[in-house]
Amino acid sequence: MTPSNEQAIVLISCKDRRGIISAVTDFISENDGNILDLDEHVDPTERIFFMRVAWDLATFKLARKEIADIFQKKIADRYQMNWVLHFSSKTPRMAIFVSKLSHCLYDILGRFQSGEWQVEIPLIISNHEKLQEVAERYDITFRHFDITKENKVQQELRQMEILNELNIDFMVLARYMQILTGNFVQAFKNKIINIHHSFLPAFPGAKPYHSAHDRGVKIIGASSHYVTEDLDAGPIIDQDVVRISHKNDIDELIRKGKDLEKIVLSRAIYLHLQHKILVYQNRTIIFD
Amino acid sequence: MTPSNEQAIVLISCKDRRGIISAVTDFISENDGNILDLDEHVDPTERIFFMRVAWDLATFKLARKEIADIFQKKIADRYQMNWVLHFSSKTPRMAIFVSKLSHCLYDILGRFQSGEWQVEIPLIISNHEKLQEVAERYDITFRHFDITKENKVQQELRQMEILNELNIDFMVLARYMQILTGNFVQAFKNKIINIHHSFLPAFPGAKPYHSAHDRGVKIIGASSHYVTEDLDAGPIIDQDVVRISHKNDIDELIRKGKDLEKIVLSRAIYLHLQHKILVYQNRTIIFD
Amino acid sequence: MTPSNEQAIVLISCKDRRGIISAVTDFISENDGNILDLDEHVDPTERIFFMRVAWDLATFKLARKEIADIFQKKIADRYQMNWVLHFSSKTPRMAIFVSKLSHCLYDILGRFQSGEWQVEIPLIISNHEKLQEVAERYDITFRHFDITKENKVQQELRQMEILNELNIDFMVLARYMQILTGNFVQAFKNKIINIHHSFLPAFPGAKPYHSAHDRGVKIIGASSHYVTEDLDAGPIIDQDVVRISHKNDIDELIRKGKDLEKIVLSRAIYLHLQHKILVYQNRTIIFD
Amino acid sequence: MTPSNEQAIVLISCKDRRGIISAVTDFISENDGNILDLDEHVDPTERIFFMRVAWDLATFKLARKEIADIFQKKIADRYQMNWVLHFSSKTPRMAIFVSKLSHCLYDILGRFQSGEWQVEIPLIISNHEKLQEVAERYDITFRHFDITKENKVQQELRQMEILNELNIDFMVLARYMQILTGNFVQAFKNKIINIHHSFLPAFPGAKPYHSAHDRGVKIIGASSHYVTEDLDAGPIIDQDVVRISHKNDIDELIRKGKDLEKIVLSRAIYLHLQHKILVYQNRTIIFD
Repeated sequence: MTPSNEQAIVLISCKDRRGIISAVTDFISENDGNILDLDEHVDPTERIFFMRVAWDLATFKLARKEIADIFQKKIADRYQMNWVLHFSSKTPRMAIFVSKLSHCLYDILGRFQSGEWQVEIPLIISNHEKLQEVAERYDITFRHFDITKENKVQQELRQMEILNELNIDFMVLARYMQILTGNFVQAFKNKIINIHHSFLPAFPGAKPYHSAHDRGVKIIGASSHYVTEDLDAGPIIDQDVVRISHKNDIDELIRKGKDLEKIVLSRAIYLHLQHKILVYQNRTIIFD
Repeated sequence: MTPSNEQAIVLISCKDRRGIISAVTDFISENDGNILDLDEHVDPTERIFFMRVAWDLATFKLARKEIADIFQKKIADRYQMNWVLHFSSKTPRMAIFVSKLSHCLYDILGRFQSGEWQVEIPLIISNHEKLQEVAERYDITFRHFDITKENKVQQELRQMEILNELNIDFMVLARYMQILTGNFVQAFKNKIINIHHSFLPAFPGAKPYHSAHDRGVKIIGASSHYVTEDLDAGPIIDQDVVRISHKNDIDELIRKGKDLEKIVLSRAIYLHLQHKILVYQNRTIIFD
Repeated sequence: MTPSNEQAIVLISCKDRRGIISAVTDFISENDGNILDLDEHVDPTERIFFMRVAWDLATFKLARKEIADIFQKKIADRYQMNWVLHFSSKTPRMAIFVSKLSHCLYDILGRFQSGEWQVEIPLIISNHEKLQEVAERYDITFRHFDITKENKVQQELRQMEILNELNIDFMVLARYMQILTGNFVQAFKNKIINIHHSFLPAFPGAKPYHSAHDRGVKIIGASSHYVTEDLDAGPIIDQDVVRISHKNDIDELIRKGKDLEKIVLSRAIYLHLQHKILVYQNRTIIFD
Repeated sequence: MTPSNEQAIVLISCKDRRGIISAVTDFISENDGNILDLDEHVDPTERIFFMRVAWDLATFKLARKEIADIFQKKIADRYQMNWVLHFSSKTPRMAIFVSKLSHCLYDILGRFQSGEWQVEIPLIISNHEKLQEVAERYDITFRHFDITKENKVQQELRQMEILNELNIDFMVLARYMQILTGNFVQAFKNKIINIHHSFLPAFPGAKPYHSAHDRGVKIIGASSHYVTEDLDAGPIIDQDVVRISHKNDIDELIRKGKDLEKIVLSRAIYLHLQHKILVYQNRTIIFD
């Protein structure tokens, strides 16, 4: 759907009870909002209710700034909802973390430059200087932070400062070859998207293509996920695979894998930008 | 979701207006029904609203036989809905049409026999005698109707009689090599599922694997669809593909294609049995 | 390729040296054999040479029974080859091991019955009686071996006896829920094909669909492999995957997975029947 | 395989006869060449033989400049081969044709810039000025040729001049929205790679995503092919697909399709650069 008007988008999770959908849709209808998209899901084991609803604000009677308060009092309190409100007019601000590999970075910048996404990219951070020239080619601020075991905590604090200064909403690790500290990760819960170059949970950690080759798998994959404190174990957003054969040596796996990585990472960024992801107990609900 | 209780399932289509979702979910909530699954879609061009909602009947206050009447008066009339009500306890009755190729038939019967589907199969119809032994192996009534240009209309009338006698709900053409007449097709609108051995709309009609080989495609496909009067042009239910190479001759395409055909046909049958398909203007809405 | 004449098929592995391909193809040409298919691969790290060559025996000057001896002396000795000779006219004899799940068994029997494969199936072995009726439906000898921790070694010896008596060439574990002993596995190296219901090496062992659901993966898979002493760690023959979503509960993963399992297992059986698999260091070379 | 030494690569097609493989591999062996890769295929219907063989030149006794002559006399003449010799050290020169859509162009330039391919890109040609800034960002000569029905023939002659001047080896139409004249196409047989935004032969010509949406397909595709005089009917190099649903409107098909297009086009370019494509009767043999 491509409505030209501004939309409000609400993401909800709460214990499942009768009448939640009625309550939410009544709230919108009574205020003359027209629902553009509604998707709900109930986890059948845990009885948790999840919902994403988007409505047109053109005819909506409530002012943008009063929606949150009224929804909280009339609906969210009653059902003890975890919920968040987004407006489609707000353009999210994204920072990209890279090391030396450029394929994901080029893919992101190509999409950004061609207007494929509604996003701002004010900052690229790297632990190497190699990709500075790419950032400059696209006129994006590039900040180099040399990372060692000793200075990591300190450098992350400086990174957090600049992320804060530039009002960054979320971050993308585009083959960033550093493990973030728990402190950093906790500060940006479900706001750091990573691409791992394997079909998780197979081959977490370093050198997954080497492991895939050793194991003799017939298909390789890539997985985008939110970063948590456990390495490569955060909630998976998207995965995809490509068929390989005994003819493909490790270099060929790496080459084929790059195409997967950039597509799977960019799909995750798009879903995040569209506010189509809810996280619950290390799993994602994707309202696609 | 696998609820053990009986469910009611309603499929709806109508002009999109504000408040439809509220109206339907209120109807269910007010009668103490618990919604197990709800999916809706609005065609953004034509502004048509589609919905599938399933609810638990265990706590529902209305008796099964009064649901339809009350829903019609209180909800459907107001929004001029096309709608249909199913109960999960009703086991659909399916007839299979075959010619000489057995792979789809074996796949269907294996699923049937192992209890994978909730379905009854009281009848297999064929224009050849070849697969009679398969029907007998599974103790299913087999009826042979020799079809010629001259006798087709007459034979179809006889087929319709027996389909009627046996209370057949829908039919599956499991590589049935006959084109049905308009009369027959119209009598069973959206009740005849066919499998076509190509990635439609590429290669409709006869010998698609030969055409695929001639054209040098790198991927072949199969498509399941409801039968309409236009050959291989009915609403597509599911499609899938498999990669091929120059090494695969036509026999190899046929061999690889068989696996596609049986999977894609069986997926369509499953969706139909689950009442998850709505048809609108030669397209399907699949509430999957 | 679908030649009507009998073929000889040779599978070779040896240290890579110059001139091997010439030597083999000269041997065939000089004896008036026409090469129908040739595929070779060199492992670039280990410098190991692999080859599959098939030729038409119609015009071949050597008698079938002298080919092996002459090839050994003129070619194989010179290059210290591991090699094996097959004739396309020999129909392999396969035994199927099952427990209670029938979907792979039905798929195999459907293909067998419809003549899709050139194979004989003289025996079905099970640790349960449940699928005896399926074997009977297809007139195949069914042997029930109750397996406990205490009697496993003894029962396997009895199984080996009957496998031997019936001249079984290879075995298929069609969701057979028993771990074979090292003794049994060693006796049938690269002759036991298993289907594991996950995308190996992710989720080996029991209940992979439960683990996949817990981890929140977006794609599930199935893997066919030769059985070795390490559980689910033998050389992978084929793998395939299907996309899932948060909407799919464990029952739905199991249902979707069944289609994968039967297709991936049957592809492995077909490749084995075609003598298109070479095993080297726990990896397969598939001459497809 | 990633050999560091220079390779010779020969692509052959001819009538199939006994002894061709021996003759070619003997030629290489006798001159102390080490075969790195050999793949052959025989069209079983037409009895045409195809082969790609690559060997290491480090130990090869013939000088690079005498290889062609000697191979012609000793081998090619005897079997009346169509054949071509490439050296891995020669870096091909590619021109890119674009109109207004930039996603394929960005993808190509990202790969070029990051060193993923061994290629030179001295020229971008367009019938619009829109993407001039992209070319400038990457310091590549951009030439704008306004195309009308009246001036097309004249403009193409001017394009051919500059292509000639810059020693362009092959061209890529990266969503170039002009139909080339027969004259132009004939001048560059199997040297113009196009990406078509559908799963050919479905939906050739303009607006395939609109047609796909109208037809209600469940999967969309993209196809890369060599350009011939018949629109979108040239030999297919690669195809790929992505699953869609009724939820995806045309804009969403276009968005999803862009990812397919750039990957499928880039795969074709890579295969072309690796000299892994042979064309025969409007089909490709891909030695992958």
